[in-house]
Formats: sequence, C-alpha cells, structure tokens
Amino acid sequence: MSWTNEADQDLRARAQQVIPGGMYGHESTRLLPAEFPQFYLRGKGARIWDVDGTRYIDHLCAYGPNLFGYGFEPVEAAAAAQQRLGDTLNGPAEVMVKLAEAFVSQVSHADWAMFCKNGTDANSMALVVARAHKSRKTILCAKGAYHGAAPWNTPRPAGILPEDRAHIAYFQYNDADSLVDVFKAHAGDVAGVFATPFRHEVFYDQYEPDVEYARLARRLCDENDALLIVDDVRAGFRLARDCSWEPLGVRPDLSTWGKCFANGYPISALLGSEKARAAAKEVFVTGSFWFQATPMAAAVETLRHIRETDYLERLQNYGRRLREGLAQQAGMHGFGLRQTGPVVMPQILFEDDADFRIGYGWTVECLKRGVYFHPYHNGFISAAHGDTELNETLDATDRAFEALKAGKAALKPNAALMQLLAHG
Amino acid sequence: MSWTNEADQDLRARAQQVIPGGMYGHESTRLLPAEFPQFYLRGKGARIWDVDGTRYIDHLCAYGPNLFGYGFEPVEAAAAAQQRLGDTLNGPAEVMVKLAEAFVSQVSHADWAMFCKNGTDANSMALVVARAHKSRKTILCAKGAYHGAAPWNTPRPAGILPEDRAHIAYFQYNDADSLVDVFKAHAGDVAGVFATPFRHEVFYDQYEPDVEYARLARRLCDENDALLIVDDVRAGFRLARDCSWEPLGVRPDLSTWGKCFANGYPISALLGSEKARAAAKEVFVTGSFWFQATPMAAAVETLRHIRETDYLERLQNYGRRLREGLAQQAGMHGFGLRQTGPVVMPQILFEDDADFRIGYGWTVECLKRGVYFHPYHNGFISAAHGDTELNETLDATDRAFEALKAGKAALKPNAALMQLLAHG
Repeated sequence: MSWTNEADQDLRARAQQVIPGGMYGHESTRLLPAEFPQFYLRGKGARIWDVDGTRYIDHLCAYGPNLFGYGFEPVEAAAAAQQRLGDTLNGPAEVMVKLAEAFVSQVSHADWAMFCKNGTDANSMALVVARAHKSRKTILCAKGAYHGAAPWNTPRPAGILPEDRAHIAYFQYNDADSLVDVFKAHAGDVAGVFATPFRHEVFYDQYEPDVEYARLARRLCDENDALLIVDDVRAGFRLARDCSWEPLGVRPDLSTWGKCFANGYPISALLGSEKARAAAKEVFVTGSFWFQATPMAAAVETLRHIRETDYLERLQNYGRRLREGLAQQAGMHGFGLRQTGPVVMPQILFEDDADFRIGYGWTVECLKRGVYFHPYHNGFISAAHGDTELNETLDATDRAFEALKAGKAALKPNAALMQLLAHG
Repeated sequence: MSWTNEADQDLRARAQQVIPGGMYGHESTRLLPAEFPQFYLRGKGARIWDVDGTRYIDHLCAYGPNLFGYGFEPVEAAAAAQQRLGDTLNGPAEVMVKLAEAFVSQVSHADWAMFCKNGTDANSMALVVARAHKSRKTILCAKGAYHGAAPWNTPRPAGILPEDRAHIAYFQYNDADSLVDVFKAHAGDVAGVFATPFRHEVFYDQYEPDVEYARLARRLCDENDALLIVDDVRAGFRLARDCSWEPLGVRPDLSTWGKCFANGYPISALLGSEKARAAAKEVFVTGSFWFQATPMAAAVETLRHIRETDYLERLQNYGRRLREGLAQQAGMHGFGLRQTGPVVMPQILFEDDADFRIGYGWTVECLKRGVYFHPYHNGFISAAHGDTELNETLDATDRAFEALKAGKAALKPNAALMQLLAHG
C-alpha cells in the first residue's frame, strides 16, 4: 500500500490560516505523530478513510460515538425519516417523550431524562442540579478526572479563574480513605460526587474500581444527603446495557451520557432518580438545538439495538481476542505491552516507555498498514468490528511489531509531547 | 377550522412522568397560554404542524434557526450528501476548513473561526478567550442580557453560586455613563465586554443602540486593552450579511454565532480577529460532536445563500409589511400595539397591558386561526415567508383583533406568568 498524506498536509496549511492553531480540542493531532490524519473523507462500518483516500480499520470510533458502525443503516433510516418531517422546530416532537421513556425503562436508576448536546452540558447540568438539590456548594471529583471542557473542569488553565473551581474538592480515585476524608472536610456541604465508572485518563493505564469503593461512595452520599453522579459519557453502553455501575450493584442518583447512544448523531443526556427530580425542575438549562427531533429518532433506534441485539457480546468478543492476539504478538517480538481497562475500550501502552516513543512508533507502523490505534487515548470497539476486521488487524499489527523491532534504535520521542510533559 | 390539542395534552401527560416538569428550557410552554402546542409533528417552508395536525404560519422559526424555511431543499441536499459520506469521525472533514474560510471572507472583523454546538458554548468560549488574552478576570455584561444558560449567565438562580459570577460586572445597555463607570471601577482588569447587537430581552420592548454608544464601547475596549464581543447568536444574519454591528461601523474582536447559519442543523461559532488568535490557541474547549461534518456542510450551503441571494431584502420586506399591516389593524380595532426592534425580529406587545392579558389573548386568537406569534419573546421571519403567507397572516390577525375586542372583558392574566412576575 502506498501511503501519503499530502491532501491532509495541504488542508492543515489552509486550516492554520482560519482556525486558531489549525485545530483545537480532543480531535486535534497536535500531540500525535505527524503521520496521523487530521482530516477525514468518510466512514463505513468499522472503517474510515482519511482525506488522502487511505482506508483504516478504526479502533477509535470517533472517540466513542460510533457504536454500531459508521453509517449504520437502521439508525440512518430512522434519522432520515424524522429529518424529512422536521428536526429543529418551535418545540420537540413526540420522539422526545419516546426517548425519555426508552431511557427510563433501560437504565435501572433512572426515573427521568433531560437531553442536551455535549457531554460537558450533561455534566454541568448534573453539577447545577446537585447544588440545587439541598442548596449546597461542594462538588467532589477524583483528581485528574475529565468531566468536560467547561471552566470548572477543563484540563488546561488558560482563561480559567480560581473561582471557577472554588467549591470543587478532590479525592484520589478508588481510595476509600481519601473519599472519607474529603467528605469529612466538607461535612454538611457536599452537594454531589462525580464517579467515573472506571479510571480512563489519557497517557495512563486504565483501571476498574473495587466494588467496595463504589459501594462506599453510595453509602457516603446517602449518609450525607449528597447526590451520586456516574459520568457515563465515555463508557456508556460499552460496559453494560444499563448504567456502568449497575453490574457493581451501585445505583447513582444522576448519570450523564453522551457520545454513543445515537450512533454519532449529536445528543447527550442527564438521567436522574426520583430524589433528584425536584432540583432538576428548578434549574434553567437549554440550547438552541437541544430539542432537535432527528438525533432523538436516531437515539430511539440505537437504544432498540442496544436492547434487542447481542452487540455487547460481540464488542467483548472482538476486544478480548484483540487483546489476546496483541499480547501474544508483543511477546513474540520482545515487547512488553500494558493493555488495561475493559477490552471494549482498550488502552494500549508499552512497558519501559516513559517518553512514549515505542508506543508512538508502533501506532505509526500500524497506521501505515491500515490500522488505526491511538497512542495515548483509550480506544473503542464497535459492533461492526467482526472476524474480517480482527484478522486484518492482527495481520497488520504483527508486521507493525516486526517493523518496530527493526527500527527501534532510531525511534525518537515526539517533540510536542515532550514539551507538554515538561511544561504541563 | 376545528382546533384541538388532545394529542398534545396526552403527550404532555406522558412527558410529566419522564421529563422533569414535563419540559425544560426556552421551548417549554410553561409560561405560554394553555392552547400553545408543546409538541410538533413537522415543518415545511414557513409552516409548522403541531402533533394534533394543526398547521400554523410560523413567526418564531424555531426561535431563530429557520432562516430559509423548514426543510429548505438546497441545504437538506448538501447535508444529506455529507451524511452519506460521514458525519462524526475521528476528526473533521475538509468542509470544516471550507466553512472557516467562508466565515472569514463573509464577516469583516473575522480572521479565524472555531465551531461548537450551543450558542452558550460560543459565549462561554468568548469569555474564556477574553480572560486568557491578557490574563485578566473581569467580564462586562449589560444588566439582564441573556448570553446563554451556563452558570455565569443563566437567568434562574437554582444551583448557581456567587463565585460563578465573581468577576462579571454589569452596566446599563446603551448608557454611555454606565459603561464608562464600570470600566473605571475595574480599571486594568477588564478582559472583555459583551455587546448584544440590539436589546432583545423577553417581556420587554426591544431597542437598537445609539451608534455613539457602540463606538464608545469599541473605543473603551481599545484604550483598556479589552476585547469587544458581539453576541450575534440570536440576531446573526438577520440584520446584515456580516456581523450585526458592521452597519454601525463597529468591528468587534470576537463575535458569537448560533441558531441560523446552518438553517436548523446544530452548529454554533466563535469568530475572532487576529488580535485574539493567540488566546484562542491556548484555551481547551471541545465536544464530542463539535467536528461533525454534516452541520458544517449545511452551514457552507446556508452561507452561500446568505451571500448570493436577496434573502435579507425579502425578510425585511415581509417584516415591514407585517408591521404596517398589524399597526393598521390594531388601530382600526382600537388597540395600541408596541412593535419594536428590527422588523425581521418582531416584538409585538400591547399598550396598557401590564399583566400581558391582552397580548396573551391576541396570540391565542391568532393561533386558533392558524398563525403562530409568541406573546413575550421576539419573533423571527424566514426567507420562506412570502406574499401568500403575509396575506393569510393579515387575514387571520384581523379576525383575531376582532375576536379579542369582543372578548376583552373576559380576559384573565396567565396564572403561571403572574406567579413568575410576583416571585421572580
């Protein structure tokens, strides 16, 4: 395969003129190897094409939204039918009620639903609802956890004031003592506790919480009249057909959803239990496009496939075999892989790779062989990933490990990444 | 015409179970007369159908997004073509660069563009960029101006902390002394000034600013090294084919856009001048769906129609004739109308109507005759509003005034509205 990124380079040069930095946010390739495409042409099933026409088996799934495959026909058809009737009108369509009903019957803790556009919207709504619930201020978050790009949580300090985080207090994820301590330090004022279903920060190994820790979080919230919030924006419906902590036997008061429940159509959600309904009625939150009918029609159809198909087992099957195959190949080629987190959201890092040069080198070798893995952000599997994709992937990754081994001495760390790690 | 809202009432009852308060945000009918539909079936051109199948000539245009008519074919075709290729991928498509280029060539002050989903996103980004620009804190806003539903500006206090607004300072809109004073009070720390292109708060007469006031805002920003931000989310491309203050000869450093530039597809934007580019590069802002290609394709096509057609003159023509016709009818039937603001965004209130009972009564009479006017929020005209719609509208409004006159003695104020006005 002849690999080129000339069209991508041309577009980047044009983008530099009219977009600050040429691109922004989580889809910027600023910290990625130069070979990674910034601009895409199309997607179908488990595959994406960059603007140079190069096709990849995609293990990022648009950072999550692609759950059933790009251009999944049943969802596209449901969305197109609604679009022909109407999308953004003077109020919602019937489908909003159907979608709320579908969520309430699907997610065990939920008695009601509110819809918005961004995962950040859902998390900021959860924060405001939690504060309104008992007129309290303090919100507890795990240190380093990402709950969106609003001033109270965005990871970069430019333009952010201390006041934006005045009443956010932090604890160590999955550390019972730390959680108990922060509750004590803010006794009587804890409004809510954000809980990521598992730890999934960029550049780090992922890990799942102890069940005792999750239950402690629930108990502390009950004892202190605070709301427990599970942030399921990233992991939703990839760990369970329910809230991600349901398998642990822990039901939150609020959960936040985004990314994948409309298979790429733009919609996110805040779900809540009866206890939180009164506060949710009081807050004022809205957006020009929050009541669009088309993404809601896409969501209703996506939820039907979540409910009625074996998509989850297929994701797990692919993820497990991918992990096993990569582990075996890495061993054969003399590399130590750190594969962490749920198999359907694989984080793939290398041992003895403090400056990430090996991992970066490997993802470039994969990319040049038609397989897309992200070097520092967890991946995502879709239900369109089947045996064909797995075999093609493992064939490419085997050759990538071989090339990596041959070229290992010449690997250099990524300059932009080194600058970030040095200066924060 | 036989008018009923049984289907709407049934849906509202279902919604009460699964959505807090049955509905939320700006499209909630909580403060509207009971006859106003909450749920809609479809839209086409200048017309909408509620879930009971009743058709209305719509003068709200989805609170702005509908600029060229619901289901406007050229935009629908451009969006559908992009959707077939791909929408939410691992990065943007080429159309993002094309859209940024189109904005930069269309809007005089703009050297760059960033895209997001909500008008609130764009305004919150403007706030953060302004603070990052010179590492300052204070943001100036006109008292009562709506810049979105984020904690720093949302109009309802539930769940909001004093710290959320710690460094927001307020002035009176269109009051030069007030603006000078607030700059003095925060000398050396003003990061940015929000300027609504004209005053358009709900329940109030609209008014346009003096040109001297707009120029003073520009001069004070220059003298104090602060960024001037025009919030064009509501008015954008209905006053000019450029930023709304361009006709006044005033160019901001940042402008925010939403609602109408993709004719109903979900996208908003922050535009900036060269001066603000460095700060815009530094902030971290993003969203799962911000780089969707389909709304960008819709926006490129919408901007082409803004650039190449006489849509604006058609909007103005309809708006002017509507205003004249309503004024004449009101006079004939003995009512004093207050029609304020630009004719393309008509605010229609009644004289001697402190509790809004006359205005509410009139909009109900219009609604029952197939014409939708909002009783307290400014309306919007689209380019699909032509002679047929105008004649049908004025025929209905004439009969509505007649019915209003006959039933005037029996009018009662709206209970929910009275509660709001009494308790805030």
